[in-house]
Amino acid sequence: MTEPNERAAAVADRYWTAIEARNWDGLGELLADNVRYELPQTRERIRGRAAYVQFNREYPGDWHVTVQRLTGSGRHAATWTSFAVDGRAETGLTFLDLDDDGRIALITDFWPEAYEPPPGREHLVERW
Amino acid sequence: MTEPNERAAAVADRYWTAIEARNWDGLGELLADNVRYELPQTRERIRGRAAYVQFNREYPGDWHVTVQRLTGSGRHAATWTSFAVDGRAETGLTFLDLDDDGRIALITDFWPEAYEPPPGREHLVERW
Repeated sequence: MTEPNERAAAVADRYWTAIEARNWDGLGELLADNVRYELPQTRERIRGRAAYVQFNREYPGDWHVTVQRLTGSGRHAATWTSFAVDGRAETGLTFLDLDDDGRIALITDFWPEAYEPPPGREHLVERW
Repeated sequence: MTEPNERAAAVADRYWTAIEARNWDGLGELLADNVRYELPQTRERIRGRAAYVQFNREYPGDWHVTVQRLTGSGRHAATWTSFAVDGRAETGLTFLDLDDDGRIALITDFWPEAYEPPPGREHLVERW
């Protein structure tokens, strides 16, 4: 996890550890001053370390995060996380891009929701 | 891209290159015999190389894929892709797990859709 070319994976690991611990100073230390947090599904963007830490600190509900997958190399990492939010399960998919100093410059977050499968592939698919 | 501990990233790169090229033999060579393809949002699963290649071969529409992010190390890789499907834009998020032989044993795919942002964070967020 700490090899030079796995720096992004190590940062991703520290990122989720800090968030789950509500360690807001620790989270802030991982972020570039001008970090951007982007949610392509809602076309929302938050700019800057202070605002992004505040967003996490204010996030409503009793939530806990478990990392399902965490991978990265060089300046890029990706994680698949499971959130328990007030007893509901949600999935988060996060892409982190680091800057020259190894700080997180861009966080792109996706929250996929359940949907009904399209018809036409029943001959190949099982449901669970 | 070809360092030993970046094998998963190299496999992910070949995976998308083969799919975009409709190179079904090339795709099959990357897959374990008993590969599983899982879609957590619909709880669909496809088992085995032949069925998964067929699923891709039969996928309807005029689609093209562009890789936005690709990262990986060891046995795990993740990609964020943009699909143009009959002129519409869709986002795919894919996690690949390799087996001992470096073949893809598990593909977990997510297709996040647009949604309306929840209220309460307008003081931190801009829209684009």
